Amino acid sequence: MIQAAVMGFGTIGSGVAEVLDINRDGIIQATGQEIGVKYILDLREFPDSPYGDRIIHDIEVILKDPEVQIVVETMGGVHPAFDFTKRCLEAGKHVVSSNKAVVDAKGTELLAIAREHHVNYLFEAAVGGGIPLIRPLTTSLKGETIQEISGILNGTTNYILTKMSREGQSFARALLTAQELGYAEKNPEADVEGHDTGRKIAILTALATGQEVKFEDLHVEGITHITAEDFLYAKKLGFSVKLVGTSHIEKGKACVYVCPVMVDADNPLYGVNDVYNGVVVDGKTVGKIMFYGSGAGKLPTANAVVSDLVDIAGHLTENAAFGWKEGKFPLKSFETEKFRYYIRISGDPTEDIDGVRAAFGSVKVIEVPELTGEFAVLTGEMEEERFQRVSPAVRGLISSIRVR
Amino acid sequence: MIQAAVMGFGTIGSGVAEVLDINRDGIIQATGQEIGVKYILDLREFPDSPYGDRIIHDIEVILKDPEVQIVVETMGGVHPAFDFTKRCLEAGKHVVSSNKAVVDAKGTELLAIAREHHVNYLFEAAVGGGIPLIRPLTTSLKGETIQEISGILNGTTNYILTKMSREGQSFARALLTAQELGYAEKNPEADVEGHDTGRKIAILTALATGQEVKFEDLHVEGITHITAEDFLYAKKLGFSVKLVGTSHIEKGKACVYVCPVMVDADNPLYGVNDVYNGVVVDGKTVGKIMFYGSGAGKLPTANAVVSDLVDIAGHLTENAAFGWKEGKFPLKSFETEKFRYYIRISGDPTEDIDGVRAAFGSVKVIEVPELTGEFAVLTGEMEEERFQRVSPAVRGLISSIRVR
Repeated sequence: MIQAAVMGFGTIGSGVAEVLDINRDGIIQATGQEIGVKYILDLREFPDSPYGDRIIHDIEVILKDPEVQIVVETMGGVHPAFDFTKRCLEAGKHVVSSNKAVVDAKGTELLAIAREHHVNYLFEAAVGGGIPLIRPLTTSLKGETIQEISGILNGTTNYILTKMSREGQSFARALLTAQELGYAEKNPEADVEGHDTGRKIAILTALATGQEVKFEDLHVEGITHITAEDFLYAKKLGFSVKLVGTSHIEKGKACVYVCPVMVDADNPLYGVNDVYNGVVVDGKTVGKIMFYGSGAGKLPTANAVVSDLVDIAGHLTENAAFGWKEGKFPLKSFETEKFRYYIRISGDPTEDIDGVRAAFGSVKVIEVPELTGEFAVLTGEMEEERFQRVSPAVRGLISSIRVR
Repeated sequence: MIQAAVMGFGTIGSGVAEVLDINRDGIIQATGQEIGVKYILDLREFPDSPYGDRIIHDIEVILKDPEVQIVVETMGGVHPAFDFTKRCLEAGKHVVSSNKAVVDAKGTELLAIAREHHVNYLFEAAVGGGIPLIRPLTTSLKGETIQEISGILNGTTNYILTKMSREGQSFARALLTAQELGYAEKNPEADVEGHDTGRKIAILTALATGQEVKFEDLHVEGITHITAEDFLYAKKLGFSVKLVGTSHIEKGKACVYVCPVMVDADNPLYGVNDVYNGVVVDGKTVGKIMFYGSGAGKLPTANAVVSDLVDIAGHLTENAAFGWKEGKFPLKSFETEKFRYYIRISGDPTEDIDGVRAAFGSVKVIEVPELTGEFAVLTGEMEEERFQRVSPAVRGLISSIRVR
């Protein structure tokens, strides 16, 4: 029996205990041993939980018990999760985390501490919920030249955009529905402003390049400015609007950013709807592959945590090469990235198209019967820098979305 | 430097040499060593190939060279590939294969020999081409309770069905195009009769259950009877027609089969088009996840072979727990599986619907303007056994396709 402790008995933490129960037989078959939960660290009491008798309130109990070999960190937030994780690793215990805030802010430091103490710090559950993503990226694609990672990494915003697309709802209305269903938090900023997606694409880029990539260095835009009208034009174009985290890696530099983009039906992300996540990895020899599944949810995310526990159970006495080194991977400015642009313009296409063409060259005009006194255009490909420089001069420009 | 030998210098074999070159730096970074190709075993000479100087014609050279630690088998066909693989494993060399015929027919035996000789027999490239599939299934999902695997596993038939769907072509016409483009072989039987898909779903089921599953025990149907008319009805229903290999695992038994099915837009397989493959794994706690990518092609498939080489480079001296045990996993009869059915019927819906309802109960009638003197119905769910028993009595029944 391998003894684990769980820090933080919220949705994911209690899910981990459940998944270990549901899959007990399979885990014994796979690892030759049962993985048990000896302690659950939480500030609260859970008298009605079947795990209530294992609740403790003092991290020292875990640190001092040599029977506990693996600790699960499902606390959320950077503090005190970081401090607890650090002390567990220093005490020679493996740590498995679902906490992307800690991985983004302190991952480099914790990975180094883990290496130093010959234990593992794994976090499959921090990106893409239940989707096996970090392990395939770092095992199956180890050695492959990764050219691009682009992913729908946040279920909340994907639900909102899917709702807007299918039912013609405004952003505000779709957000409210998401909040009523528990898909979005009362303060939805981390989701709708793209921060959650940003932390995740930063982690994936660090794993792909083997060096540090920090969220605060990325270009990040959210979806609050996307309108029901944009979806009318998108439909006419055969496009879908998605919030995508992208990492474009070329010649030893990465351009990493988060923004809403229009994608066509040939893009595998086009069909990733509702709360699902999808991540496309483009490798030099393997081509484009996609990993798809539940990006959130209690049991799927807990399953990802348990997959790390099972992995560690297979090599309890060694630090497996995993993660990234200290020192930031060189980033390229977002302004150098090339896109086509959908641009919504107030006015009349026959009268106002000349000014648009003067700015952007040849464009395709799109009109939809529902909207009068305005039109949209689809430009050719240009650098973001040029778009930013030229677009302020275009009369009647309402809004724009990048097209990939 | 780790020295490998390649047996069979066809498309995949030469691709392996190329991928090792293209990804040299990444592989050294990942494994700490270069993986080189010391010998290439083939009956032919390749005087113009940059690898021409490494061509040998005698397996003994490989067997007797202690420097060769890993052998790549990309020969195709069961003989002599099986014999060569066996002798390499017995000589203490790891073997990596892309050859699903050998894995299906002789996998159990070869896995046992590998275990006995403390080496590894890996075959990521045998299923799903470049898609990381076998490794995530056997590592990330190790311990998870797999309930179902359903996959589009053959690029040739998926190309043909996509062509029929998009352009209204007949099966014969679409097959001809596929042959002209080199996507289908002159003798397309293995693809269009579902044999290739069958071997692959058998391998995936054996890996998921840990016991032997043989192609010859499966229910296998191909796509030769699918017509352009079926696609007209499918479109009206919002469905797509796909050739799917399915493994439904429940209570220690598996129902494993290959047949064309209609899928709706909510099924992740709906959007898997052209030569792409997609495999949906439904786990009890992780939910539905999909792996998507190029199911064939020189470099993607070679990349999967190289991923196995890189894996083995990390533990050259041990046999990693992988594969399945001897003894067949219990299979359930296909007749017990439940489906809805699309049924195409010659006649007039108002006159002939009573007979259809007498046989199948409440059904939905579908008519398309392009087709007169016929109609189709969509039944409720029933066991395959009942459908087989009742359908011969239905007057005017032209054909049917299962709906999932």
